[in-house]
This record gives sequence, C-alpha cells and structure tokens, in this order.
Amino acid sequence: MFSISPSARLRRSPFFASTVDEGVTSFTVYNQMLMPTGYGHPEEEYWRIINDVSLWDVAVERQVELKGPDAGKLAQILSPRDLTRCVEGQGKYVALCNHMGTLINDPILLKLADDRYWLSIADSNILFWARAISAERRFDVEVTEPDVSPLAVQGPKAEDVVASVFGEWIRDLKYFWFKETEIEGIPVAVARSGWSKQGGFEIYLMDGSKGVALWDLLREAGKPWGIGPGNPNGCERIESGLLSWGGDTDDRTNPFEVRMGRYVDLDVPDDVVGIQALRRIKASGPERHQLGVALEGEEAMAAPFDWAEIRKDSRPIGHMTNGVWSYRLSQNIGFALVSVAAVPGDRVEVVRDGKPVPGTLQSLPFI
Amino acid sequence: MFSISPSARLRRSPFFASTVDEGVTSFTVYNQMLMPTGYGHPEEEYWRIINDVSLWDVAVERQVELKGPDAGKLAQILSPRDLTRCVEGQGKYVALCNHMGTLINDPILLKLADDRYWLSIADSNILFWARAISAERRFDVEVTEPDVSPLAVQGPKAEDVVASVFGEWIRDLKYFWFKETEIEGIPVAVARSGWSKQGGFEIYLMDGSKGVALWDLLREAGKPWGIGPGNPNGCERIESGLLSWGGDTDDRTNPFEVRMGRYVDLDVPDDVVGIQALRRIKASGPERHQLGVALEGEEAMAAPFDWAEIRKDSRPIGHMTNGVWSYRLSQNIGFALVSVAAVPGDRVEVVRDGKPVPGTLQSLPFI
Repeated sequence: MFSISPSARLRRSPFFASTVDEGVTSFTVYNQMLMPTGYGHPEEEYWRIINDVSLWDVAVERQVELKGPDAGKLAQILSPRDLTRCVEGQGKYVALCNHMGTLINDPILLKLADDRYWLSIADSNILFWARAISAERRFDVEVTEPDVSPLAVQGPKAEDVVASVFGEWIRDLKYFWFKETEIEGIPVAVARSGWSKQGGFEIYLMDGSKGVALWDLLREAGKPWGIGPGNPNGCERIESGLLSWGGDTDDRTNPFEVRMGRYVDLDVPDDVVGIQALRRIKASGPERHQLGVALEGEEAMAAPFDWAEIRKDSRPIGHMTNGVWSYRLSQNIGFALVSVAAVPGDRVEVVRDGKPVPGTLQSLPFI
Repeated sequence: MFSISPSARLRRSPFFASTVDEGVTSFTVYNQMLMPTGYGHPEEEYWRIINDVSLWDVAVERQVELKGPDAGKLAQILSPRDLTRCVEGQGKYVALCNHMGTLINDPILLKLADDRYWLSIADSNILFWARAISAERRFDVEVTEPDVSPLAVQGPKAEDVVASVFGEWIRDLKYFWFKETEIEGIPVAVARSGWSKQGGFEIYLMDGSKGVALWDLLREAGKPWGIGPGNPNGCERIESGLLSWGGDTDDRTNPFEVRMGRYVDLDVPDDVVGIQALRRIKASGPERHQLGVALEGEEAMAAPFDWAEIRKDSRPIGHMTNGVWSYRLSQNIGFALVSVAAVPGDRVEVVRDGKPVPGTLQSLPFI
C-alpha cells in the first residue's frame, strides 16, 4: 500500500476529524476531495452494512446547484430524463450525457424548488460543464457548488436510527425523496437514498462547520443499533449491481450500455444535450452491455487497479471493469462490460496479471 | 499518513511499474490518475532537483487534443491569450477562464499543426468543458484525450542527459518549444518545459505501452549525471513561485490575482470565453493578489491540508494557500492570496492549527 500526500489541492470533508477519530486508515480521492475507504477491518465493516447500520462520510458527493428563473429549464437541458413531473422534495436518478451521448455522470437530481435544483454528483466535474452550457445558452441561472455535504446512514437498521433522531415521519419518505429540516441547530436535508442496496438515508449537511456535531449526534443515537464507521463498499455494491461512474465506464460508454436506458426518455425536447446522439445510438443498438462475471477459484483477489480483458473462445469480448471477493457468495465477482453478443451463461476467461481465470457471465445484480 | 486504496477509477500512468521499481512511497491523485509524490527521501530528492537531475512521472498532465478544421478557432475561443502568432512547434502558457473570468486551468498549449493542438492541463476536467463549448458553437473539431503521457527530466543537468539521448539539437529548443521525434521506436515529443525553475525537459510519450522502455532509457542515459527519481516538488515550486491550480486558487480566482495578467490579451475577439468578464475585472481592478509569506520559527511545518487565514492588525486579509519548509532559505514559506491593500514588507500572522504564527509578506519568487 502507498500513502497519500497531504495537499491543499485535495479538499477535506466536514466529517474529516470524525473519521480520523474513528480510526480511518485509507482514502480515495473523489471530486478532488478525500473520501474514507476503510477503517482497518474490511470484513467487519462489510457485515455491519449487511446486518446492522453504518455511518459513511460521503461529502465527496458534491452538489451542483442550479438557482434562478431558468433553473428548471437548465436541469432539463442537462438531463435526458423527462423531468416535467418531478415535484418539490423529489429526487431522481439521472444520466448526464455529453453532446455525443456519452455518459459523463450519474447524479441524483433533487428538486428543492421550482427555481432551485441540486445535482448530487459522482466523480466528474459537472460544475464547469453545466456552467459552460448555461452561459453558452445565455440562461438566467446561477450554477454553484454550495456548502452541502452528505453523510450516509446505511444498512437494515438505518431507518430506526434516523427515525430516532429526526422523527417517525422519515419512515414515510419514498425512495430518493427528501425533506429539509433542522436538528439541534444543524440545517440538513434528509433523503432516502445511498449507494448500497441495504436501505438507508443520506443526511445532506448544509453547514460545513457542523460536520463533527452531526457525526457525533448520529453516532450517539445509533449506539443501541450497533452503529459504526463504514464507507461506500466495493463488495456490497458489486453484489448489488450498483454502477461506479469512471470505474465501470470509459470515454465512450453510453447509458444503454450500463443499464441506464430506462432513465433516458427519447421524446424530451431536441435541445436537451446529447438527446439526438442518444436517439441514433438507441436506433442502431449499443455495441456493449453490462453483465456480471463470476470467477472460479477460492482465493480472494486483490482489488484491481485496471480493467481486465475478458475473452470468449480465445477472442477479446470486453473487460471486467471492477472485481471483488464476495463475502456472501464466497467467490470472486465483477462487472463485465462486453459485446452484446455475449450473454449470461457464457463461459469466459478474465485475464488477471497476464493469467486467464475461467468464469461465467451472469445477469446483474448478483444478489 | 493514510494509505490510498486501489481503484479502477484512479488510472495508473504508463510509468507506474517503473516508479514502483524505484521505490515510490506516496501518491496524490491528479486528473483522476495516480501521481508519485515521494520516494522516501524528501531532502535528498529535493537537492537532486536543485543540483543534479531528476526523472518525474507527470503522466497526469493529460493532453486535451483539438483536431480538425476548427481546431485553431477553438483554441483561441478557449484561451484569452492572443494565439495569432503561435507557430507549429511552439508552446505557450495560457490561462483558461470560464465565462465569469474565473481561472479554471493553466495549461501549456502546444501547436502541433494548423489543425492540431494540445492543452497539457493542470488538475481540472477541461475535456468535458472544451467539448461542451465546441459542440454548443457547432465547431468542426474533435476534442479527445489522446494516448500521450509526459515524463519530465528536471534539474541543471537535465539538458546534458536529454542531449545524450536525443542529440545536440535539443540544446537549441526555446522555452516551451517542442519537436516530435522517435527514440528506439518510441514516438515522443521533446519540449523544453517542466514544473520547476531548475531547467529541464518534458518528453511527451505517445505510446502508453512503452512507458517502462522510455523510463529505462532515460534512467540508463542519466547515470553519468547521477539521475534519480523525483516528482513535482512542493518546496522547489514554492521557492520558485510556480502556481498550483486548485491548490493556490479557489472558485473565484481570476488570472490577474495570481500573476497571470500578462497572459491575458484584452483585445482578443469578443467571442473568446470569459474575455468580456476579464475586461470588466481588469477595469475595476482585482480584489486580491498573490504574494509570498515568510514565517518566523525554525521548526519545519507539516504540509498543510487547508488554506490558513492570514491576519494583519488582527483583521483577516486572505489566506496562505500552500506552505513548506524551504531547505535553501531554512524557514517556512508559503503563497499568500491576500487583499491588494496588503503589500510586501507587511507584518502579518498566519493562523496554523488555531495558533497565530508571525510572518512577513514578500514578493514572489522567493528565490
């Protein structure tokens, strides 16, 4: 393992001090910001998410705020998902595509008001991109990165913890819906969301000076349910089939290739960025699709740095984009971005460190 | 120190295996890619750059290539520096600004041909931004990230090393000029450039499969001059007054604030992105400017994670954006982004870990 050098270029989260207190051991960089990736007990941290409840510093999910008279118009221009029926307090998972129809981010869009939206983004610079398009079209809207930092509470017991802090009303929140509120003087928005399939909430902290206070409050409230530190989990998310933009996608991936076709409405207006390219891609059919791949062998593989070639009948058909040892399945599994000619059940080989490892394609999610 | 987790989201450089062989101990993430930041002997590595010659993996300086009939038009639209006299083989340091005149990157622009340019970028996503502007204006140009990865040879003996490999002609290269060539079957462009003031070259590798071969070739050739591994050096660059975009700038920094006013030509055409805002900023005068700050005390400070407030007469006047122990000056020095009312010679206090440290503002560079 290598260490990460401190730098003012890599921003810290409002929860940084709390994660250090919890014993964080490793980080990644996401949106030019440090994100915890482990607390030294990977298997324990995994089962905490599966069975109990876990607190994650996901402040790196930065918000791109659209505010002003043209905010709604800009939101629709940036996303090929029809937003006409999106109401205040509702969130929607959207594909952001460039003019060529390539997927450049997969945020949750949150509608705070008719003239105010957030894009809660994955790891790519949407601030510069959205500002450029807005300015080129002379829209009357401010595009900023506000002081908003999500803290995720994830796992089957997350709802009980969050209800104990914010009240029983949170049990009625629908998936991706949210509500602005305040707790002990800390302004937040509470959303039912999070990058796991174990259920949970994301608490959008709206005052960066109160990160430690919010962490402590949830940490304390969660004790009866055995809460502990965690982070977006490579194993759980692959088992559950959750996409990692930039990890499972490349510079030519379109939404149809990575199971996001259902979030593309081909009848949105012609001036939506990328829609004309997306219609062409849909008409001719995408070249690749995303499946799972289960590998043979009983030894846990190291987390990969790179995509690994997948071969079928000795010919390359695509790549394993990420892979991990599955604690629940007791085997190595990964995401496969492969030719549409390849289908679940196909026997393949995944080339790891120059060595072909036999495996089988299957549909996602694994669990 | 914390470790950095492997992830397919964080790309490796073509020189990665070589840097591991050399004993790299730490990395940063820059343009979603791993960059070495140390080999375990910081002081030795520093003096190697100052006195001898050093080999740096700077593949993270990605290229944004503009290619096609409108490439020149797009290059000019993206940069407020007048490019009309830029010729093939010439590089120019440019400010990229958004529509509000905010500095969003400070690349070297390289003109490879009338219809082909590279922007050799700092740590922000210019690919998405340039593509958006090009597409919105319906320019006939392809904007891509080609397979090009710079390897820097830096230090007073760099010229001898590079001449021994590529020939005596490299001694005639002017600053930022470059030439495409080939060495032992490896396609490269050789430029006189690099992020130090000790002199040197950047070898732009144009075939990622040949990174180790290029590293080995320069490593072997450099032996008589005592070449060894290094990386962009926080101490040398602060002593020398070199800007770190994203480290020394924030989301409202304009080029006039950070000594880049000389690269803004106010008479470029009106359709250049940001020029109208830059003219307004120039007319009203920027609010801040960049100076050096020398701190009292004889103990080396830890590299800062965050900007530190600077106070004058107990009132905040700006921030120390980055700071370091200077081996040559034997004191802590840093960059100050402060009100234009503050001038060199002013006595100030820099707040580090809640404690005010006395210091003096001075002009840049330090050395």
